[in-house]
Amino acid sequence: MSLYSEYFYSKDINNLLSERQTIAQMLRFEGALALAQAENDIIPLQSAEIIDTCCQVDFIDIDKLKSEIKLGGNAAIPLVKQLTRIVKNNDVEASKYVHLGATSQDVVDTATVLQMQEYWYWLNDKLVILQELLTDLTKKHRETLMIGRTLLQQARPITFGLKTAGWLQSISRSKDRLKSTQKRALMLQLVGAVGSGNANISKSVQLSLANILDLKPAFSWQSNRDTLVEAASVFALLNQSLGKMAKDISLLMQTEIAEVFEGAGEGKGGSSTMPHKRNPVTCAAIIANAARVPHLVASLYSAMPQEHERSAGLWHAEWEVLSEIMLLTAGSIERAIELMESLEVDRQRMLLNLELTKGLIYAENVSLALATKIGKINAHELVEKACKSAISQQKHLKEILEEMNIDLPNLEALFKPENSIGNSLEMIDEILN
Amino acid sequence: MSLYSEYFYSKDINNLLSERQTIAQMLRFEGALALAQAENDIIPLQSAEIIDTCCQVDFIDIDKLKSEIKLGGNAAIPLVKQLTRIVKNNDVEASKYVHLGATSQDVVDTATVLQMQEYWYWLNDKLVILQELLTDLTKKHRETLMIGRTLLQQARPITFGLKTAGWLQSISRSKDRLKSTQKRALMLQLVGAVGSGNANISKSVQLSLANILDLKPAFSWQSNRDTLVEAASVFALLNQSLGKMAKDISLLMQTEIAEVFEGAGEGKGGSSTMPHKRNPVTCAAIIANAARVPHLVASLYSAMPQEHERSAGLWHAEWEVLSEIMLLTAGSIERAIELMESLEVDRQRMLLNLELTKGLIYAENVSLALATKIGKINAHELVEKACKSAISQQKHLKEILEEMNIDLPNLEALFKPENSIGNSLEMIDEILN
Amino acid sequence: MSLYSEYFYSKDINNLLSERQTIAQMLRFEGALALAQAENDIIPLQSAEIIDTCCQVDFIDIDKLKSEIKLGGNAAIPLVKQLTRIVKNNDVEASKYVHLGATSQDVVDTATVLQMQEYWYWLNDKLVILQELLTDLTKKHRETLMIGRTLLQQARPITFGLKTAGWLQSISRSKDRLKSTQKRALMLQLVGAVGSGNANISKSVQLSLANILDLKPAFSWQSNRDTLVEAASVFALLNQSLGKMAKDISLLMQTEIAEVFEGAGEGKGGSSTMPHKRNPVTCAAIIANAARVPHLVASLYSAMPQEHERSAGLWHAEWEVLSEIMLLTAGSIERAIELMESLEVDRQRMLLNLELTKGLIYAENVSLALATKIGKINAHELVEKACKSAISQQKHLKEILEEMNIDLPNLEALFKPENSIGNSLEMIDEILN
Amino acid sequence: MSLYSEYFYSKDINNLLSERQTIAQMLRFEGALALAQAENDIIPLQSAEIIDTCCQVDFIDIDKLKSEIKLGGNAAIPLVKQLTRIVKNNDVEASKYVHLGATSQDVVDTATVLQMQEYWYWLNDKLVILQELLTDLTKKHRETLMIGRTLLQQARPITFGLKTAGWLQSISRSKDRLKSTQKRALMLQLVGAVGSGNANISKSVQLSLANILDLKPAFSWQSNRDTLVEAASVFALLNQSLGKMAKDISLLMQTEIAEVFEGAGEGKGGSSTMPHKRNPVTCAAIIANAARVPHLVASLYSAMPQEHERSAGLWHAEWEVLSEIMLLTAGSIERAIELMESLEVDRQRMLLNLELTKGLIYAENVSLALATKIGKINAHELVEKACKSAISQQKHLKEILEEMNIDLPNLEALFKPENSIGNSLEMIDEILN
Repeated sequence: MSLYSEYFYSKDINNLLSERQTIAQMLRFEGALALAQAENDIIPLQSAEIIDTCCQVDFIDIDKLKSEIKLGGNAAIPLVKQLTRIVKNNDVEASKYVHLGATSQDVVDTATVLQMQEYWYWLNDKLVILQELLTDLTKKHRETLMIGRTLLQQARPITFGLKTAGWLQSISRSKDRLKSTQKRALMLQLVGAVGSGNANISKSVQLSLANILDLKPAFSWQSNRDTLVEAASVFALLNQSLGKMAKDISLLMQTEIAEVFEGAGEGKGGSSTMPHKRNPVTCAAIIANAARVPHLVASLYSAMPQEHERSAGLWHAEWEVLSEIMLLTAGSIERAIELMESLEVDRQRMLLNLELTKGLIYAENVSLALATKIGKINAHELVEKACKSAISQQKHLKEILEEMNIDLPNLEALFKPENSIGNSLEMIDEILN
Repeated sequence: MSLYSEYFYSKDINNLLSERQTIAQMLRFEGALALAQAENDIIPLQSAEIIDTCCQVDFIDIDKLKSEIKLGGNAAIPLVKQLTRIVKNNDVEASKYVHLGATSQDVVDTATVLQMQEYWYWLNDKLVILQELLTDLTKKHRETLMIGRTLLQQARPITFGLKTAGWLQSISRSKDRLKSTQKRALMLQLVGAVGSGNANISKSVQLSLANILDLKPAFSWQSNRDTLVEAASVFALLNQSLGKMAKDISLLMQTEIAEVFEGAGEGKGGSSTMPHKRNPVTCAAIIANAARVPHLVASLYSAMPQEHERSAGLWHAEWEVLSEIMLLTAGSIERAIELMESLEVDRQRMLLNLELTKGLIYAENVSLALATKIGKINAHELVEKACKSAISQQKHLKEILEEMNIDLPNLEALFKPENSIGNSLEMIDEILN
Repeated sequence: MSLYSEYFYSKDINNLLSERQTIAQMLRFEGALALAQAENDIIPLQSAEIIDTCCQVDFIDIDKLKSEIKLGGNAAIPLVKQLTRIVKNNDVEASKYVHLGATSQDVVDTATVLQMQEYWYWLNDKLVILQELLTDLTKKHRETLMIGRTLLQQARPITFGLKTAGWLQSISRSKDRLKSTQKRALMLQLVGAVGSGNANISKSVQLSLANILDLKPAFSWQSNRDTLVEAASVFALLNQSLGKMAKDISLLMQTEIAEVFEGAGEGKGGSSTMPHKRNPVTCAAIIANAARVPHLVASLYSAMPQEHERSAGLWHAEWEVLSEIMLLTAGSIERAIELMESLEVDRQRMLLNLELTKGLIYAENVSLALATKIGKINAHELVEKACKSAISQQKHLKEILEEMNIDLPNLEALFKPENSIGNSLEMIDEILN
Repeated sequence: MSLYSEYFYSKDINNLLSERQTIAQMLRFEGALALAQAENDIIPLQSAEIIDTCCQVDFIDIDKLKSEIKLGGNAAIPLVKQLTRIVKNNDVEASKYVHLGATSQDVVDTATVLQMQEYWYWLNDKLVILQELLTDLTKKHRETLMIGRTLLQQARPITFGLKTAGWLQSISRSKDRLKSTQKRALMLQLVGAVGSGNANISKSVQLSLANILDLKPAFSWQSNRDTLVEAASVFALLNQSLGKMAKDISLLMQTEIAEVFEGAGEGKGGSSTMPHKRNPVTCAAIIANAARVPHLVASLYSAMPQEHERSAGLWHAEWEVLSEIMLLTAGSIERAIELMESLEVDRQRMLLNLELTKGLIYAENVSLALATKIGKINAHELVEKACKSAISQQKHLKEILEEMNIDLPNLEALFKPENSIGNSLEMIDEILN
């Protein structure tokens, strides 16, 4: 963890993916494996229980373990060595059954999946919270008028609720994805040295172990890594959707727009020498994460063509990258929740900004209304002329039209944003249902 | 298309995603939109039919269109301009209803989805073919003994069918993904300038158009791009799984291994000055694509935080990148099918290679067998000693053990690969079922 | 080339890197190789001249060539085959000397370098033009006051010339890089099948050929690709610096900021139904390219660990990716030149925007001035209080200070932007010198 | 740091880039800034010395600092706050001059550059060591015959020295790059809130500070990040060249090739149950790093289009990514040195492998020799026929030729690898000079 462990990241997940917890999950695998083998009469129950009891991270010399990784190229080898010694100190017989029939990748991969499993629940909980926050915002701002912007230009009015409803939809889809890929991603790896299994890790042992760990039994995925990368993609899609929200909010916070703001905590986002500043510091973290995660997820795709039954390097490339994707996505959703919990919306400023173009955003309304009277082409030409006058004279388009004595009884209504939001309200209602 | 249009790519998909077909799909949207609006009494049916009739790519001046893209920043603007003129030449009244209520992004995005829709069917067909080929290979080589390799080292025996069964599983998962994401990905975009819809593209028009084009109706996804990127991820996962197969085959084709080969066509992969060469030229194309697609898919993730209701640049970044992902994945699967259709397997060489370590790959078998007699630890020490002798004397391990008068009646059997493949056959059978 | 060949790209470079010109450069290598071999008495001069005369792209059946690439895995094999036949039709003896001693990678790599060589000159010329445009802009706007913005918030005043001077510096550094890497990048590849050379491509032939083609002679770089990727990095750094300019301009064009604009051509960036829009369509192309190139350049880095003397796939992965980087960077610099040639700057609006915070951007000025009178801490407190009042009462800070009877004789001067731009002018002058 | 801090990484650089040392470098900036300001009579010398004395990382509450980063969005804000309090506790007057005129980015960026400066020296030292190791290897194996391989196929003989000479060249180019970019990369950042400087950080203060810290003075590069990304690219190019070496060695270590090996330490790379294994565990770490760094460097390119005078997120995205690139490259070069220090080369096996094709790799030699007697075409046909016989009869080509009574007095010599290595020796000698 870096200096920025509380900014780009989430403390919960920093902990879940810490080296200590990683070792704990590896030990959990080893303990459960012994129990599963005992359950299938492959090793004595007593030995299994002794092994299981020894599988505690407190017993492990982590520094020693880390320094020995260079020798074998993964954390399982020195861990199993230490564990075997610990068990042996308790019971020589039991020590013969440690890690029996399993291979390093079995424990490393399954420990990763066990971390993902907890992550899955955590992330789902956060998604529920964020959905609720976005649902509330959408309801609250169902009719909050603002300008819609395309290519960074004012375009036509929408409501703020329509914008948040779009965010909500992407979040809900992320939640759906989480659910639908869970079954593929949370798989046991217990297949031995070359993926072929062996008598000590027979199918029934696999089933027992999968049952104990609440994972899906599976054939070898030691060098076919699509399910792992798919899971990472699901996290990344979420992270990038959060990036979109943060991008929007950071733009709406611009001094010249000033429609929406991160909540201002004590000392947050401000500057003592520049008192007008409302720096989007929470958005900045989410945007930063959204600038990083795509490249990390690409690392995993790049590492997919793994050689033969286990890769010399590409498997190794996954370990920290997958963690980093999970860590950053966790940070992003935590920051996003903080953001939405305290989001400030300035409806008044939104209305003011709707007037910035002096009515030009309503030109199409006029054009359509006139068309029914004088035909589409004449209407278009007339309105174009009026717009040019409005711009050159820096007058409001409505004023120009009045000066031109355009005969439109409902002229006033054509310049009201609430009449120009299309089906925004219906769409919001449907999305909320 | 480049020089390499038939090597990295598929002619079918080069055509599907050609500029001509892209325009054709945009026109298909415009024609169908008019018909959908007529169906909902928004425009006269006669006008709609005239519009629809004019929506033919042969009527379009493509060079002119391309040169005008710089002005508006997308292909829809000059296309709608040309289309309107064409319709007007046929019927002035009808020309008023071209592209009515729609925005550029509606037509560009929906045309993309329509191309994806055809791609989806095409890809699914190819996956079926590849599944069949891999199923056949797996059946045929269920018992074809070979060495399993980890970290590029010989490890323990497997069968070639176990390897192909692993490939088959990843391909089958890709097919599942294609199916499960289809509903999310193949969505209509018809939401107008800022995503709020309008009277001319009412919900019922949406439904009609979705029905005509066989797409899912949807709210605006103009700047929430997760479904699009998810589709690209599904293609990329497939592409990388194909990369894994090609990587394996290219390694198995090495002169020093020589177990599996690309089929040799007339003049294919050979060299007149180096007659021994069997270059993995088909694998090279798939591997090259697998080196490129991860970065392309990352571009799409990077481009997800799109501003407001339409992005100034990030939307634009998607167009060619998504195409390129689809093009390369299509090339990879075509090449993979060619590869599997003509794959040559040298069972004899596989057996020879199993003997390269002079029995050392069976050391564990001996150790386990001995353990029941003299205990695990004694067995381990004895076998370790025997292995060292075998290596230093360059003798076969079995010979050494015989010299040591080890009392194991079934010594011969311990050195047979068919007794060392764990649960390979059971696993294969389960996977095939 | 896609629909977007004139938007994201440059016609010049589209042509330079077209399949036709790629073949032409390969033929240029073959012709020059024969002449170099004749110069060194390895082949008869007459044969060399015949070969050279036959090396014309018009003689090549490109479709046939493309369809045969699948067999050998690169364009050189079918090209040499066709060329040999063409030469043979002219002179049987000469045909024996075609491509003598060279390998496919020699011709493919050198042709790439020859394209890069022309690209280098083209790019350098464009950089000179862009430097001049940015120099002019910087001079013209040396004193054009505007607000500096950090984290998208108004911060303190600068001049627009300071901003363009920053752009200019990054462009000048790109020009320096282009110069300093040229010697490393523009290298001949002429080393034969495994990089060891042979009698027909002796050192003296290498020197002759390097001389004819104006390239640097070199040892094999067939699988050590750092110079190629370094060149791509230099292009990419430029492309991303252009992206930064386009990003700034697109933000400054926002309706609510409206300080700087892309020049408005006939029909450019506007919308008939939204007459107020000034879409940053040129910026959007540059921003899109800046979203794509990073990932393409990463593909080349990923492809660097190439196996042995020539890679099975990673070399192949480079071909189109390097081209695409060159194509997109060319498009970006052409667009950037168009942008700077017609950039519109609204000084009046810049001054107006400086007033948006009602003087708060000058709070530090007041604080510093007061500090000399009442001490830093008292000054800070007093100004903080005044700022809060200004915000809550929506009054100008100066007004509040006047109401508070702050005794500062030069109060007016403290609120002038020209007094708040630090060393902007000196910096600009130094950068311009 | 993760579990893998000693595997993928270097302890030295883990320490250099630790959170503690990052803070220490930020404090070094603050202390030196005060001294530079005193040197220019901007603040009292006594105050400057007090500030400088207080700039010790031991005085900082790092946990508190980390928890406050969320408020301001970077580490400088809470650090300056703590530092000011520490100074104030010593001397109230001095506390007024802490961080005077500087902005957060000045300290964060300069601290990064200071870390890069130390890294530069460290990396250069490592490159010198690696150059020496590769030079020694090249000398030692100048004449060590082995097969050259293209597309993973045996092609023609080379010497192992030619291969290591290619590696050496890429490393030497990395060293050149490090030198030539140093001047651009190691730049001071001291330009205040919006890059315009101010009276407290005048040009002469800049020069003094640059002098104290041994950095190059510079104008603002707060949002023009090309020099930083260029430095990262230089590191990445090195990392990927190391990846190429590791890739080659891992392939040469394959059981079936077995020509070159990582040195076997006690317990390194082996397996107790698979005594024949020589896992390339050091190569795996370097290959893993080479799979990750390209994507990290792309993150920095992606983050280059930073908004206005300081970005809201893209600057933030750089911090950890640049560190990670430096950390991984450091790990790779340390591993590469370990690799080359103990590399084992099996010349005998190389010679054996040269015979694997039963003389076919020499077919071209025969063809060329025969051509002078019977013409090129006849020679080619005859040799082609002989090769086919050799393959079908599984005989040595020489034997077949003898059976065919081919009249070539020097037939034996044509089948010697030392006669088939082209200009390998001359090339090596030139590279070594």
